[in-house]
Parts: sequence; C-alpha cells; structure tokens
Amino acid sequence: MRRASRLGDWLWGTGLVLGVMTITAAGDPETRLAGYSADASRAELEWEGKLRAIPSPDTLRESMRRLSARPHHVGSPYDRDNAEWLLARFRAWGWDARIETFDVLFPTPKERLLELVGPVRYTARLVEPPVRGDPTSSQKSEQLPSYNAYSADGDVTAPLVYVNYGVPADYDELDRLGVSVKGAIVIARYGHSWRGIKPKVAAEHGAVGCIIYSDPRDDGYAAGDVFPGGPFRPADGVQRGSVQDMPSYPGDPLTPGKGATPGTPRLSLAEATTLTRIPVLPISYRDAQPLLAALTGPTAPEAWRGGLPITYHVGPGEARVHLRLKFNWDTHTLYDVIATLKGNAAPDEWIVRGNHHDAWVNGAEDPISGQVALLEEARALGELARQGWKPRRTIVYAAWDGEEPGLLGSTEWAEAHEAELQQKAVVYINTDGNGRGFLGMGGSHTLERFINDVARDISDPETGLSAWKRAQASAIRFGTEEQRKSARESVLRLDPLGSGSDWSAFLQHLGVASLSLGYGGEDDGGIYHSIYDDFYWYTHFSDTSFVYGKALAQTVGTAVMRLADAELLPFDFTALADNIGSYSEEVQKLLTDRRTEYAERNRQLDEGVFAATSDPRRPTTAPPHEPEPPFLNFAPLMNAMDSLRHSAARYDSAATRAGAGDGAGNLKAANAGLNARLLQSERRLTRPEGLPRRSWYRHLIYAPGYYTGYGVKTLPGVREAIEQKDWHLAETEIERLAGVLCDEAALISQAAVELNGVVK
Amino acid sequence: MRRASRLGDWLWGTGLVLGVMTITAAGDPETRLAGYSADASRAELEWEGKLRAIPSPDTLRESMRRLSARPHHVGSPYDRDNAEWLLARFRAWGWDARIETFDVLFPTPKERLLELVGPVRYTARLVEPPVRGDPTSSQKSEQLPSYNAYSADGDVTAPLVYVNYGVPADYDELDRLGVSVKGAIVIARYGHSWRGIKPKVAAEHGAVGCIIYSDPRDDGYAAGDVFPGGPFRPADGVQRGSVQDMPSYPGDPLTPGKGATPGTPRLSLAEATTLTRIPVLPISYRDAQPLLAALTGPTAPEAWRGGLPITYHVGPGEARVHLRLKFNWDTHTLYDVIATLKGNAAPDEWIVRGNHHDAWVNGAEDPISGQVALLEEARALGELARQGWKPRRTIVYAAWDGEEPGLLGSTEWAEAHEAELQQKAVVYINTDGNGRGFLGMGGSHTLERFINDVARDISDPETGLSAWKRAQASAIRFGTEEQRKSARESVLRLDPLGSGSDWSAFLQHLGVASLSLGYGGEDDGGIYHSIYDDFYWYTHFSDTSFVYGKALAQTVGTAVMRLADAELLPFDFTALADNIGSYSEEVQKLLTDRRTEYAERNRQLDEGVFAATSDPRRPTTAPPHEPEPPFLNFAPLMNAMDSLRHSAARYDSAATRAGAGDGAGNLKAANAGLNARLLQSERRLTRPEGLPRRSWYRHLIYAPGYYTGYGVKTLPGVREAIEQKDWHLAETEIERLAGVLCDEAALISQAAVELNGVVK
Repeated sequence: MRRASRLGDWLWGTGLVLGVMTITAAGDPETRLAGYSADASRAELEWEGKLRAIPSPDTLRESMRRLSARPHHVGSPYDRDNAEWLLARFRAWGWDARIETFDVLFPTPKERLLELVGPVRYTARLVEPPVRGDPTSSQKSEQLPSYNAYSADGDVTAPLVYVNYGVPADYDELDRLGVSVKGAIVIARYGHSWRGIKPKVAAEHGAVGCIIYSDPRDDGYAAGDVFPGGPFRPADGVQRGSVQDMPSYPGDPLTPGKGATPGTPRLSLAEATTLTRIPVLPISYRDAQPLLAALTGPTAPEAWRGGLPITYHVGPGEARVHLRLKFNWDTHTLYDVIATLKGNAAPDEWIVRGNHHDAWVNGAEDPISGQVALLEEARALGELARQGWKPRRTIVYAAWDGEEPGLLGSTEWAEAHEAELQQKAVVYINTDGNGRGFLGMGGSHTLERFINDVARDISDPETGLSAWKRAQASAIRFGTEEQRKSARESVLRLDPLGSGSDWSAFLQHLGVASLSLGYGGEDDGGIYHSIYDDFYWYTHFSDTSFVYGKALAQTVGTAVMRLADAELLPFDFTALADNIGSYSEEVQKLLTDRRTEYAERNRQLDEGVFAATSDPRRPTTAPPHEPEPPFLNFAPLMNAMDSLRHSAARYDSAATRAGAGDGAGNLKAANAGLNARLLQSERRLTRPEGLPRRSWYRHLIYAPGYYTGYGVKTLPGVREAIEQKDWHLAETEIERLAGVLCDEAALISQAAVELNGVVK
Repeated sequence: MRRASRLGDWLWGTGLVLGVMTITAAGDPETRLAGYSADASRAELEWEGKLRAIPSPDTLRESMRRLSARPHHVGSPYDRDNAEWLLARFRAWGWDARIETFDVLFPTPKERLLELVGPVRYTARLVEPPVRGDPTSSQKSEQLPSYNAYSADGDVTAPLVYVNYGVPADYDELDRLGVSVKGAIVIARYGHSWRGIKPKVAAEHGAVGCIIYSDPRDDGYAAGDVFPGGPFRPADGVQRGSVQDMPSYPGDPLTPGKGATPGTPRLSLAEATTLTRIPVLPISYRDAQPLLAALTGPTAPEAWRGGLPITYHVGPGEARVHLRLKFNWDTHTLYDVIATLKGNAAPDEWIVRGNHHDAWVNGAEDPISGQVALLEEARALGELARQGWKPRRTIVYAAWDGEEPGLLGSTEWAEAHEAELQQKAVVYINTDGNGRGFLGMGGSHTLERFINDVARDISDPETGLSAWKRAQASAIRFGTEEQRKSARESVLRLDPLGSGSDWSAFLQHLGVASLSLGYGGEDDGGIYHSIYDDFYWYTHFSDTSFVYGKALAQTVGTAVMRLADAELLPFDFTALADNIGSYSEEVQKLLTDRRTEYAERNRQLDEGVFAATSDPRRPTTAPPHEPEPPFLNFAPLMNAMDSLRHSAARYDSAATRAGAGDGAGNLKAANAGLNARLLQSERRLTRPEGLPRRSWYRHLIYAPGYYTGYGVKTLPGVREAIEQKDWHLAETEIERLAGVLCDEAALISQAAVELNGVVK
C-alpha cells in the first residue's frame, strides 16, 4: 500500500552547525554539511557526487520489468522468487544479505458471492477482465481475486444502505436523516479513511455486512481518461486491500507485539482483535451501479453523491442484497530480504532503509517503482564500497514482504529484533512506490532540517530545478498562508506520519526517527490494487522514462550516506519543539472550537431552529444536545513545551560552538558518546504502555487516527480523547504527554552539556 | 423567468413609530402598525384579517389548471386568451381593468440544426418527448421548439471547446490551459449567470457559436430523481430562454427607453445592441453527451466537471460541430392586463403589484403559480371593497405579458407611463412563480422593516410557525455569522435586487422602491423553461396542496393593503443607511483584496512559482502580471454616508415624536405633503444619465451585474469599475454615488423637518 504524501514546510531554526553552512575561506564559498567537520564534509560531498551518478533509468526499467512480470502476493511462487532474486542482487553488489522468514495468517478467498435479490436481481461479476495490449493483465490463474484481506466469513441477506465514505461523521448524517444501518448491509465508497475503518464503524453501528466500491468520481472517468486510454480506473477495476484494524495494531493478527517466528505462541482467530466482525467485499463501479440504482429512501446529501449517472439514494427500501464470503484461513511464509553494509567506526548505529516487495497483483507502481529505486541505491552504495568508501555506521537495506495485508514483513521483523533495534537504530527511511512530480517528505521533525538539505542537492529531472525548489514553489502556490510563509523562509515542513506503510513498527512501536519519501503529484492514476497496476500501465502513464525513479534513488541514497557518515547525528530539536508547539496549539484550539460549536448548536436547539427548518415532507432529526466541554488543564503541557524549547536552544548553542572553525577536533571528540545518546531521542517520545485502547502504538507525538487509519493524529492521546469527549482521559493524556516532553528535554539538555564539554 | 431568492436579514434600527409597536393600554397589549395612528391601525388590522381569510387553495388550483392548460408564449393564441380571461376576472371582482398592448420584436425558430460532424457524427434531436400520464406534454403543435430568443441567425462549422459556465473567469482558466476559443463553437453549461452572458462573453473572446446545455449535476439526475419519477430534469429536457443582453437594457430590443407603441420609432435589427452577435442554441444533456464525449485536449479542471458519465475534456481537438439557426424576426403583440382600485384619500399615490402571465410553454410554475396568487389577492381586495373597505391610495394590479423574452411587458408599460409613474408610484411588488418552503424577501432597503413586519403576521402553512420565524430559523441555521447575528436581533435583511424579473423597469429604470417575494427552498425541480413545467408536474412535486400559494396571496395582499392604507408611508431610512454602509465597506474591501491578490500573484511570478509548478507534460501558462490597484479617494462616499446616517437618525427621531400617544392628529397632519416627498426617496438614488455603458440602468445602488446578469451588483458604478480595473472611472463613480446619497440625505432631512413641524 502507498499513500500520497503532501508537501509540508517549516521554518528553520537558527542553529547553524546542524544546517548546511556556507563558509567563505580564501574567497571560495564552500558548503559544509550538518554534523560534519570541514574535511569530513568535503570527502562526503565527493562520495555523494559519485553515488548520484550511478542510478540508471534503464536499470530501473529492467528491474521493474522483472519484479512485476507475474503476480507476487504473499504466498505466491513469484513472491518468493522475487525475494530470492533480490537476495542475489544484494549479494552480487557486495552486501551481507539474507532472507528472514515469518509465518503469518493470510486469508485468501474460497467463495465470493454478491447479489442484489430484490426488487430486481443482479449478480455482481467480481472479475477484472484482461485488457488487450496489456500482457500481464491476462495472467488470470496467478491473480488473487478481488477481496478484502481479514474480512470475516459470512453469509448474510439484508437491506442495503449507502453510507458515503463510511466514516463516523457519515453515521451522524444518517441519524439526521432517520436512517439506521442496524441489520443492514452497508455500501461505502473508497476514500477518506483507511479501508478497514469502514467495516469497523459499520459493525459498531449494527451493520451485518459491508461492500466497498470505487466511485468513478474519485478515481474513475470523472477524474480523467480510464485505462487503457488513460491512467484512471476502468469500470471493472477493483481496489483489493486489507481491512484489518491497523489502528489497533498492524502485523500478523495472531502475534501482536511479537515476531511471528516458530516459537511464538499464536492467538486463536477468535482472540485476534484486528479481524473484521462482519464480511466485507470490494467491488468495481460497474458492479456497484445496479446496487446503488436500486436504493430508494432519502436522496443522498450533496456531498455524498458520486459520479455514476444515477440519483444517489441512501436507502433503505426494497433493495436487498445477499453477500456470501468464505476464506481459506491459512498460514503463509513471508520472505524479508535483509542486506547489511557494516559500519566502519560505529557498527552499532544503524541506518535502516526499506520498501516492500510484495504486491496485490503485479504491482508495478505499488510497490515496485519504489523497490527498484531502493535496488539502485544498493547497487550504487555497493559500488562506492568497492571503490573504497567506508560508511561510519552500519547500513541495513530491507525488501519487506507482506506489507499489503497489514505491514506484516516490517512489523514482524521489527518485533523480532526489538531489543537490538531499540539499542542501535538511528533512523528508518521508507519508500513505497514512486511517481512523477514533486518530492513529498514526511517524518520525524528532528530530521526536518536534514532532509530539506538533501532535497536541495537533488535535481528535478524534468525541469532542471532542484527537487527542493519545486517543492517550495508548490508550497507557495498551493499551501495555506502559514505554509507559504514558511516555504518563503526556506524550510519545508515535514508531514507528520500516520500509517499506511512500513514505517509504523519503527516509528510508532519502537520510537525510531523515520522518514517517508517519494515523488508524486503529476502522476494521476486509478489502478491502485488492481490487476492493471502493471508494467504496461506504469510505462505508459507514470514515470515512463524512469527519471523520477533515478531521482528517488539519488534522494534516498544521499540521505542514507549522509546519515551513515555524519560525525555528529544531524538531529534538530528546535524544529521538533516548533512543530510540537504548533500541535499543542492545535489541540487547545480543538477544545475551544468544540466548546463554541456545541454552545451554538445547543442554542439553536433551544431556539427551535432545527424543528423550524425541517421540511415537513422530508423531516430531519435535530442533532443531540451536547454538554459543553469543560476547560482542561493544559499547564503541564505548556510547561513541558517551555523546557523543550529551552533545551533545544541550549543544544543549538552548544552545536554552534562545537562547529566553529573547521569543527574537526570538536566533532570527532563529540561523536563517541554523544551520538549514542542522540539516537535515543526519538525513543524518549514513546511510553511502554502505549496509547489508550492500543498499547502497540507507543509514540505520543505521532499515530494513525483510531477512526481515520491512514490519517495522522499528532499528540494522539490528547487529541483523540478530546474528539471522543473523554475529558478525564484528556487530562491524563496531557500529563503523560508532558512527561515524555520533559524526558526529551532532559536528554537534549544532557546532550548539550556533553557537547559543551568537548568543545576545546 | 424566475430566480430563487435567498433569505437576507438585517437588524432593525431603533426608531419605533416606523416599526410595529406594542403599546400597553389598560393592561392590554396592542399592536400598532408602522405609519398608522392607533385607530387607523386597529381598523387596518381588522380588514387585513378579513383579507387573509379569503384566498383558497381550491381556487388557486383551478386558476392554475385554466391558465396552464395550453402553451401560452408571446404571440400564441392562448397567451391572448389568458389575458382576456384575466381581464374578465378583474372586472368581475369590481376592478377597473383594461388590456394595454405593445408591439415588440419576438423571434421564433425557423430552422435549428446541430450536428457533430467529426470525428464521429451525431445529429442532435432537439426534441422534448411527451411523458405518459402528463397530458399537456403532448401538445406538440402549440409548443415553441427549444431555442434561445434573440440569438443571431447563423450557419457555422467549427471546432468545439467546453467553457464550463462560460463566465469571464472561465476564460481566464482557459488562458492558463493555453486554449483559445477564437473561431470555435463553445459549449457552456447553464448556471452561474444570466444565460445571455454566455454568448456575450463567448463572442467577446472570438467564438463563432454557442451551445448551452443543462448538466445533470446541476438540475438532472445528480440532483435528484428525474421527471416523471421525481421533480428533476429528464435527459431530454431543455431550458429555453432569452439571451438578449439584459444587463444593457431589457424590454423590446428595438425601442430602448420607450414604450413599444405604434408611434415609437424602431431601431433596425443591426442597431439593436441587445441581440447576440453569434448563434446560440440550448440543448438537453442527452444531446450534449455525444458532443462532450468527442472532446479531447486537457482534462477539464475539477470544478468544471459535471454529472455525465464521461471524462470532461476542454478541447479543442478533432471534435467539430455544425450549427445552423434561422429565425422569424417577427413583431408580436403583448397583452398586459392592468387593473385598478382607485384610492380614496390619495388617488395619485400608486401601489403597483405585478406578476407575468406569459410562459415559455405551459409554465405552471413559471409564472402561473405566482399569477394565481396575484389573482387571489385581487379577488380578496375586490371582496373587501365590496364590503366597504376603501384604500387610501390607488392600487394597480398588473398581469404582464412577454416577461420571458426579456421583461417586455413590464418594461414597455413602465417606459410608456414613465412620467406618471415617476410622479405617482410609491412601491412596486413583484412575484414570479411560487413554491414550497421559506419566504424569500428581496428589495429596496427602505422597505426592509415594513416587510419583516408583514412576514410576522403570516402563518407558514405546513408548520404553523410564522413565515418570518421559519425564515429567521433558516438564516440562523444556514447563514453566515453576521446573518445569524442579525436574525437573532430580529430583522431579516432583504436581498438586494439584480435582474431576472419584472421589477427591473420600476426599480432600476424609474427608481420606484420595489419588493420581490416568494416561497421556496423545499421545492426541488429541474423542469425550468421546459415542456414539463406544467400542471401535472406542479401538482405532483411542488406546492401540491396550494397552501403556499395561499400563503403568498396572504403575504402580498397584506403588504399591498398595509402600504395602501398607511397614513405615513412606512419607509425606513436607518435600514437604508445601514445596508448602504455595508456595501460601501464591501467595495473598499474589494479594492484592498485586489491589491493583496495582485501583489501576491506578482510576487509568485517574480519567484518563478508558476513555472516551477507547471507539469512539463501538461504545461500551463502563468497568469499575467497585473499592476497593483492605486489607493482611491473614498472620502466623498464616507462623508455622504455620514450625512445619510445623520438624516436617517433625525427622521427616526421626528417619527418617534409624531407617533407618540395615539399619533392620530400628528400622522393625519403629516401625510398630506410629506408622503409626496417620501415617495420620491427612491428616485433620489437614481441619475438620469444612468450607469457607465448602460444608461437605461439609472439606480446607483442596485443593478444586475454587467457580467452576471441575474446577480446583483450593489453600488454598481463603483464596484464594476474596480472589478474592471478602471481606476479613473471608479473615482468618478464614487463621486456620483456620493452625490445621490447627499441628495437622499437632503430629502430625508427635509422630511424630518416637515414631520417635526406637524407635531403638536
């Protein structure tokens, strides 16, 4: 799976040594890399230049052709074949590589039936036909049928109700319309949430089945020309995908928090809380149209109407559907390919970089377009090592299996190696497919300044501008007033990370500072998780010349090298404090806005406004009276933010002193003990007991939303307690959050003291 | 034609005598009408109660059945037949009634051909088929074919370009996409402007033909179930309508500013500036789909995409269309029915009330649903007169002909009677069809407080609340923050009037204070100007029980009586000053916003942002560099506003004194000379030389937008000069506007002096 990342932006702090410096020596301007002494920086820049010369569009194309040649989902022969081919590549390039296996629950369909049984009959086709000219689309015997992994078995016949995107707010709207889904089968459209949210919320409201379809408004003909004439979803295209309750925990549903190795005890299916409670099936818009057209009841609210040439009704009415789903609840083996280049000076500090290799079908875009960039990086790094480059730190490259069903390969590996990763992992860098356009940058805010610097050194292949410059222009043109201001002050803020790809276990379970990178925004498409995401589609409609694949390999390869070689780890705590400061203001504003909103609504209820505006022929129900939220004690959070800001300033000041002159002696002395402390800084933002309702998620700054799934919730404990109106919990979470921020401030202050101590 | 009016709202001033007063005398609360002494108010309220008991849903239904039984467009036999039937009604009810005729240019189609000639062929059907069960839909021989009146003749074959709604901003977007319409035929969808704007703007950009279609997103299946299953537009439904350049002048194109009577000289067709320069044809969405589907070129911007199951492209490409239109450029006779109840005390003060009777086809909703309410008012007023009620002023009821082609009947009549109307007309009250739901109130702000009071006395028929209360609830629930605040402070602001119905000649040409009233908002529909706007449709989908027809007759009947009988005309100048004050702030903000917008855009141009964000595969052109607007001298306007506010306050204070006690002597003394002055107050807001580019429009506060047509532009001279970046003109217009406001302030001050003079 891959989720488009939006461009963020942020203003740099004022510390200099952590940012790229331009020093005038003998009249020559020179760029000094953050965390590097002058000599080390010069050497690094030379090696980086060599690295960026290596990735080749032709190699990228041929790797994609090979890896996407056949369907390669978890458990398929070609999935394992690809893993072994990848293993051989790494080894050929001089890496110490191995395959690690895990045995996980991965259900596949045994029976799929969906029919409209009244007032007219229609049996859904549930088939994606081959497209003439697209050779891999006809590999029917190897393709997984369209389905939602981890759907419950079921055989239900019930009235149909349309629930828009199927998120909680949609059910509030249904309440206003007087429509209940109790005992009904709901039909929801894809989008606006992780797909697993839709059956979860439907079941919470009493539905007995769930159908998810791709509306042509969202990624079909209404968005643009459809495949094979264009990149968008054809009438029969279906989005496969997992519906496990990923916001509770990702990975193998039977081994939460533990690697799915032979010795690990398994939960029973009944005990696994991330399986859906009701049967779920994804369908095409060709199959959806007869179902939706059969609905009566209220006309769907304007925002709910899609692009089909029908009147959208909510139901219920005469329309009844029969849904029968049976799955093979089998265990399959994952093949994670793990390759290592051992560090020269600090072998126990790891830079980890990954992209998954499994796909739902052929997966040329998702995930192979990212996997081939990773491969080019590995080839280039191997080549540099052969030429004599020695990374200071250990570099670990991972081609994950089983990401599509639920981040299985990365999660099981991270869980199995938890102790070692807790100790050694410095940074995790993820990609998951790649397209054309602008560099999207998400991740931990301690890396914001660092990755901005990297982006400045990468050429956008189609315009000749730097990748950073294009992203900046986009933030100025399309961003909010605040984003525009930050971009003009020369830092692009990172998007905080929710879920949707393999960073989750690293960032949110283990507290490893993470990045997510990829090019996109000029690469429309509607073949996501269908049989049409293949080499033919990619080479006709996406990064057809593979120049952005090359740019991605250059971007991530540079980031990996620069992190691996830095004398002082280039974390920036001022950016961290500034961003968390913004989030703190947001949650306080959220509470104030709720208070205003409820007060206004209650006043309208008292004034009889809803009754007076309800159409007597189409009556709507007034929303409920909501008690106004109390004022909460945000003082602990604000005090902790003060400490965090002060410690960050102290660290900046120490770093500036340490970097003075050529920085050589200072930075060399510093890196011995200090880096070991710095690499723990992201860990300090976690708590072993995790978030309320979901202990697997330990990070108190970033989490996927419990009811959004992909979408991030920053300061999730506090924010979701306010959203769920649990005021007592909100205060507890404010205190827990203040606690981690104080711990973080203490670590940063200690690092500042140590850095001051080494300055000659 | 009829345009849905939005609810406005406004806070009352503080003057009391002009608003309804509640006086406690001997413990009994009593309502005193504005402009009435205590005795007169009591008598009036009694008569008004009798009036409101008369209108009957059954009579409304039978009148609609009769008037919509056959097509009755200008020049048709049933148009004249209806006029004669209406005449007979008025006479039967005791009115002094007559038919006035005018001879006007009214073209009808001789030949209509539209075909796609490449890359595939399609010949548009241009036919609305009868619907089974709907008897009048099959009256084919009497129906006008679907066409746009005052389209030029033409025979053109050219590439097709899709221009969205065809308003000026859409052409800016085409410039960004690098698409020109020069030499092309454009296809625009209905909506977002008076339809005559579309060919006008297309011709300004060099197009040689224009097609206008009804997109199903806007009023077809995407909006709701289509006729006959529901109220919305079926696939073959076509919106007929005039495309004359109404914002230049309405009425007969050959006699601008003069009544089209036998002696009036006519312009030649070539001299008539309101005829379109290119051929124009309206079509159904069934006919539009093959044309739009044949387009290639850029995918249409997201906001341009409609509800057809295709990818919307802008063109141009291979798609070429052939459009051939020929018209009979004939003169036809209009039959305006004019009925009078002579005033008892002030026969030379006229309250004029109108609704048109002509339709495009059967026109049950537009205009008959309003015409039948007018008839019920006339029946009721006639009945009261028979019972002994004597209106103080003269009441003139008008059933206009020829509104659909361009407000012909009302405009020619107002032009023909200009001198008399200038002297005598107090108020013009318009309706133009009626539906279900909320009372919409638009008009001159001097009447804001008056019509709010009337609405408080009318029962909403389906909820039992007052019509005012429902409108207030709607403003609170759906309005802006400011509208909500005003509504809660108990005045609903009037919508300022643009164009689209018969008030134009009265308000904007002659300066007669006007009102536009109607119920709507719970009466969906998509049969506007098609053969399906008929008795069957109306009685199945709109005000099926005619209870809102009754409410409209009660509302307007009450307003007419109350204006006709008031001792002191109930104009409120504080509301006028407050509203014009808001508009003054708006135009100043408009200039500031333009300055900010251009400055930001110019900065982005200097930064290269547009070039850096242009997709190299789908390049877009940067917008042009715009010089920033200068600061303008608004001081004359602000000084004039000061005078207006002060004079309004003086008048309020005088009116309060005059109304003290039972007010009887004061008000009686006052009304003799004072009312004659007050009825000139709206005239003071006009200038004989009119607006720039369009001298027919003389009102300096309200006008239809030169590039919107329906939509109002308040302070049009100033506002449009700023919009068109004519800074010199803007300053001239500020001074002209300040001039009328000072004249108005002088009149009001003089009225206050006179009112003070009579207070005992």
